[in-house]
Amino acid sequence: MKRLIVLFALGLAICFTNSIIVFAADPLPSWNDGPAKSAILAFVEKVTTEGGPDFVKPYDRIAVFDNDGTLWPENPVPFELAFAFDRVQAEAAKHPEWKTKQPFKAVFEKDYPTLVALGKPGLVELLLATHSGMTTEQFDSSVNDWIATAKHPRFKRLYSELAYQPMLEVLTLFRAKGFKTFIVSGGGAEFMRVWSEQVYGIPPEQVVGTMFKTKYVLRDDHPTLEILPEVFFVDDKGGKPVGIEQVMGRRPIACFGNSDGDWEMLQWTTIGRKLSFGLIVHHTDAEREYAYDAHPKSSGKLVEALVAAPKRGWTVVDMKQDWKRIFAFDEN
Amino acid sequence: MKRLIVLFALGLAICFTNSIIVFAADPLPSWNDGPAKSAILAFVEKVTTEGGPDFVKPYDRIAVFDNDGTLWPENPVPFELAFAFDRVQAEAAKHPEWKTKQPFKAVFEKDYPTLVALGKPGLVELLLATHSGMTTEQFDSSVNDWIATAKHPRFKRLYSELAYQPMLEVLTLFRAKGFKTFIVSGGGAEFMRVWSEQVYGIPPEQVVGTMFKTKYVLRDDHPTLEILPEVFFVDDKGGKPVGIEQVMGRRPIACFGNSDGDWEMLQWTTIGRKLSFGLIVHHTDAEREYAYDAHPKSSGKLVEALVAAPKRGWTVVDMKQDWKRIFAFDEN
Repeated sequence: MKRLIVLFALGLAICFTNSIIVFAADPLPSWNDGPAKSAILAFVEKVTTEGGPDFVKPYDRIAVFDNDGTLWPENPVPFELAFAFDRVQAEAAKHPEWKTKQPFKAVFEKDYPTLVALGKPGLVELLLATHSGMTTEQFDSSVNDWIATAKHPRFKRLYSELAYQPMLEVLTLFRAKGFKTFIVSGGGAEFMRVWSEQVYGIPPEQVVGTMFKTKYVLRDDHPTLEILPEVFFVDDKGGKPVGIEQVMGRRPIACFGNSDGDWEMLQWTTIGRKLSFGLIVHHTDAEREYAYDAHPKSSGKLVEALVAAPKRGWTVVDMKQDWKRIFAFDEN
Repeated sequence: MKRLIVLFALGLAICFTNSIIVFAADPLPSWNDGPAKSAILAFVEKVTTEGGPDFVKPYDRIAVFDNDGTLWPENPVPFELAFAFDRVQAEAAKHPEWKTKQPFKAVFEKDYPTLVALGKPGLVELLLATHSGMTTEQFDSSVNDWIATAKHPRFKRLYSELAYQPMLEVLTLFRAKGFKTFIVSGGGAEFMRVWSEQVYGIPPEQVVGTMFKTKYVLRDDHPTLEILPEVFFVDDKGGKPVGIEQVMGRRPIACFGNSDGDWEMLQWTTIGRKLSFGLIVHHTDAEREYAYDAHPKSSGKLVEALVAAPKRGWTVVDMKQDWKRIFAFDEN
């Protein structure tokens, strides 16, 4: 009878200890041992230790992640801009006037210095031309087609293969530890949501981003949302805490970013909190990825947040030192 | 040995069949038998039957619920307006000018005809005065205080006790069947989020509503979001599909509403879908709650959506007939 009970208990135990068995192995195998890896592991250990002084109930375990430069590269241009360039090429025949009109002319001619010189107004015009004037259904379909076929010019891989392997492990670890993981990005919400589940395991309703205005229309008894050529909300810098509040209605306790665009979100997550976690991915590896931070025109400028990091207790990841590999396809 | 295996299997089985054991009992005990109850049960059965023709994977099980008039009453005024009235009273000493100024004067004098006559501009002024000019932290705290103490004038109960018991059962059933439940309401998102988890078991990030603009400010090293006196987004009528797309990025497959303000959201959820569910709560019970629909000034006007219901296959709940009890405190 004793053996019966032991076996019965074992049957029950198997289903309850599943997660423990999985995490007996290193949950962050693509991270080198060092202060960054230790800080991540120490934080999740603290907030999940029941009865411990820093225990956080699962309800409050919210973690936010910037996308471009934090979960995947943002060079030579942010991937959404690469999508916009490709859309301009694909739509060129329908818009003969683009041939001689900036910023489109520069896209056809791959004239990046001119594009950079055209600055934000040029960028906005490109985004409007490729992201609005259609239904959300049509836009999602164009993103779907692109993500399935377009390749990165340097890595010669699908963009969806370029998620940073160490960060995928962090996402998996945090979710296994009861966290709800959100993307909070300056990129377009509608753009990211098409592939966020497939690439990061993050469902569309956990993606916060920049948005265009949309309008509901029941057209020929088919309900549609038309994307209007007007920016509704910019989810960058001070807009990130605003976007977090609009979508989540409460403060996260963990925040991962890589640039000054994430500075306010890092503040919002960590300052004055009992226990929280802030992390900055510092691009230091020109050989395996890119090395940049202080270039004033770079979309990934990292100056103020990096200076603030020691005072705020934010963990700074040195990609070259801390990451054993960058991409899933890198050799270990 | 055979007995050993059986017991071992039983141990495993107990943890997997837990949900089945729970739902051997009627999951909707506050609903009378009838077409509405049957329609709800048939829908959840269909979408959760693995291998069945209408099976929907858990990822796509998204259900949206209007709040006022669908999950709790909206009479004699929507509860958020009752909150605004109470805030005006509480802040009166700080604003001597309100004594002689509309719409505040009408609030002090409980002069509802004048308030109704002042219409939307008066309403907006009341909302601005009580919902902005402070941080989100301060606003949340004032809602928290109110919800803990304020009582409904007719039912003499805390507002948080007035959730419709039959709808709480629907929320619980849908979640037990793998649905993610969202509120999509014309009411203020910031207002509802303070108590949505406590009253409905819905976390703040699954609440979509009307929003004011906010601004991030790091003040004395304390990060704050200041609520500005400017409406950012109105989550009503055609705004509801827009709000759903902004927050969720995909279409729900079940939608619960009670007024023409939910018409577009019902369309967005159901039209042209393989399988979906639309439901309208029709207020037909003046004795136990309220009976209303077609009054043109009523915030719960239900005319067009009710006419469309048979054509669209939406279930109409006759509260008097279909609900065994309205509130948890009603006798069964």
